[in-house]
Amino acid sequence: MTTPPPHPAPTTSDTVGALSLVDPDTPFAVLDTDKATHNIARLADHVSTLGVSLRPHLKTAKSLAVAALIHGDTPGPITVSTLAEAEAFADGGYTDILYAVGIDPHKLPRVIALLQRGITLSVLLDSTEQARAVRDASAAARTPIPALIEVDCDGHRGGVTLQDPTLVEIGRILTESDSLAGVLVHAGESYFATTRAEQHKAADHERDVAVAAAQQLREAGLRVDTVSVGSTPTAHAATDLTGVTEVRAGNYVFFDLVMSGLGVCEVDDLALSVVVTVIGHRPEHGWILTDGGWMAMSRDRGTANQRVDQGYGLVTDLNGNPVPQLLMSGASQEHGILSTRDGSPLPDLPVGTRLRVLPNHACATAAQHHGYHVVDSSRDTTGTPVIQAYWGRVTGW
Amino acid sequence: MTTPPPHPAPTTSDTVGALSLVDPDTPFAVLDTDKATHNIARLADHVSTLGVSLRPHLKTAKSLAVAALIHGDTPGPITVSTLAEAEAFADGGYTDILYAVGIDPHKLPRVIALLQRGITLSVLLDSTEQARAVRDASAAARTPIPALIEVDCDGHRGGVTLQDPTLVEIGRILTESDSLAGVLVHAGESYFATTRAEQHKAADHERDVAVAAAQQLREAGLRVDTVSVGSTPTAHAATDLTGVTEVRAGNYVFFDLVMSGLGVCEVDDLALSVVVTVIGHRPEHGWILTDGGWMAMSRDRGTANQRVDQGYGLVTDLNGNPVPQLLMSGASQEHGILSTRDGSPLPDLPVGTRLRVLPNHACATAAQHHGYHVVDSSRDTTGTPVIQAYWGRVTGW
Repeated sequence: MTTPPPHPAPTTSDTVGALSLVDPDTPFAVLDTDKATHNIARLADHVSTLGVSLRPHLKTAKSLAVAALIHGDTPGPITVSTLAEAEAFADGGYTDILYAVGIDPHKLPRVIALLQRGITLSVLLDSTEQARAVRDASAAARTPIPALIEVDCDGHRGGVTLQDPTLVEIGRILTESDSLAGVLVHAGESYFATTRAEQHKAADHERDVAVAAAQQLREAGLRVDTVSVGSTPTAHAATDLTGVTEVRAGNYVFFDLVMSGLGVCEVDDLALSVVVTVIGHRPEHGWILTDGGWMAMSRDRGTANQRVDQGYGLVTDLNGNPVPQLLMSGASQEHGILSTRDGSPLPDLPVGTRLRVLPNHACATAAQHHGYHVVDSSRDTTGTPVIQAYWGRVTGW
Repeated sequence: MTTPPPHPAPTTSDTVGALSLVDPDTPFAVLDTDKATHNIARLADHVSTLGVSLRPHLKTAKSLAVAALIHGDTPGPITVSTLAEAEAFADGGYTDILYAVGIDPHKLPRVIALLQRGITLSVLLDSTEQARAVRDASAAARTPIPALIEVDCDGHRGGVTLQDPTLVEIGRILTESDSLAGVLVHAGESYFATTRAEQHKAADHERDVAVAAAQQLREAGLRVDTVSVGSTPTAHAATDLTGVTEVRAGNYVFFDLVMSGLGVCEVDDLALSVVVTVIGHRPEHGWILTDGGWMAMSRDRGTANQRVDQGYGLVTDLNGNPVPQLLMSGASQEHGILSTRDGSPLPDLPVGTRLRVLPNHACATAAQHHGYHVVDSSRDTTGTPVIQAYWGRVTGW
């Protein structure tokens, strides 16, 4: 979090004072906490009806302040994607952390160091090699490293399959050091499930695989406490999580155009955007040029294979109102190209006009920034959103 | 440059001591200074035969230490893509800086501040609105802001065309505040020029447009000192730059798979790579999983439209030797998927094996990291490259 703030610098680490979105030099990331709070409440309400706990994945926001929007003053269970996040959230008072990327044995000393600070840091694995490394490191440190076994439900990434006897073999190895904590499933296929019915089916399947894996281990005489499932689409679509103990989701706090394209949210729910400035016009090409390129938006083109390709993002005015038909159609490092989807005439947006671009993929766009300029419904006398705070992000590995 | 280093932390800000590429937790970026130095010398030699000066674009490396590989102990002319870079390089002793993104008038106070420190910071523009803003800010500060007029040669981004009388109009406005410094052309089309003949033609065309633009302005009675051209492909392909005063190129220090795909360099010239660790296997899919996803590589798929699609990158061993047929074919945030190009059997690379991935686009991949672990030809007793230093990057805007 020791990263440089944008210009002008916030007046304190957490308060920007009387600045509005017209003040900081562009490009910069904006987080609308009204929208984020709405998104957070929506999933919290839904998950509470399912009788399981929510372990938000903070790989999207990577921010203690955003985590506090979810958990309030009482740090709860979280998921992270790097040990740098685990360490930063541990420093921030979080004591129940799942590091949800298959463990590289070389990283175990940092895991042990966190455990010895009293943090319950769980790791993820899907091979006997990793299980032996965890078992041996646990024994050497006299500290059981809690481990979840990753189980694959749809062939999108890692995990052992239910048909693979390795599942129980891993469970047995972990049990030798009291490290077996449970099983984890992630429905990667759900990011391609474009109807509510498909998302519902993906959620049921994710649950079924997780519960069946836990059962296999239990039938082998092994203890399984945690049965963890989740993705942003399946977390919202699930209606019955019997046998599951916790749900993970990360993107849901910000949402993005990929998620609205799947129908998981509305475009109006998107809490993250990037403020850019018009720096030129090429009317003969139908282009408006901005100072927000892929360095500010990321190279993510996650909607390219969806029904509606949103380019690099949809354009709104500074207040968040969509500019009809306008999208970011091209990007170089520090240049964005805006054009109309239907080739209709460009709106009149002179040099110096500020706009906001809604991203395809919030995780990727947020990662291009050191932090967020935070706004809510407050407006200044010109109707421009007032900046309430600057919240830094955890970066690196 | 106040960004956190990776684990384990370098022992000093500039020296990592006796660590090798097996030591830092993955993923991390590696810079091979032997290769960078070779690439730097190659272009320096070529440009010196053309009788023009080289103004390297530091948007790729964003590092004072890399700039010193080019300029040695005597800071020379440089190009930057953000004011944050301009400020950092000014702090590092550079006094002749071109900020080569169309100027947003809101950023002029930071430009003035640099000028008032004695830095010759030139800005870029292509509209009468920007020219008036520069003229008026120059007058208000009693400090002429040097400005280059961007001229378009191939329709890839900004710039006025030679046919547009706006060119001279802009020149006249800038002259009112003694701000007209010259013209700038960038051959964006050259990144799609796949033969030496096409690159040569692009270089000639870039030169012709720049020289013609300067001539138009001079014929209007305006003074033009700087005639700036450049892109990595055209800088290498140019054979006659009569009328040009300087060449810009940035990517050439590191090179990448896009550039080797264009034939501008060999794969063996690539100076930037990312070290990743094998964390799993899915033989039924033909996959090896690593801990290097798009967060470490970027989402850039710049070779997707080239003759040979390199996925997210080519894989080498830790020593830089290519692993035949292996490429990074998929990416999620912190997971990479490696597979063989021809579907041939996967090499035996157990969990924990470290590999290097050569990127599509060095600018984008470098931007995902706080800095570089620097290696050269030095090897430890196991034959592994020894880390010579850790060099931070300038980030933000």
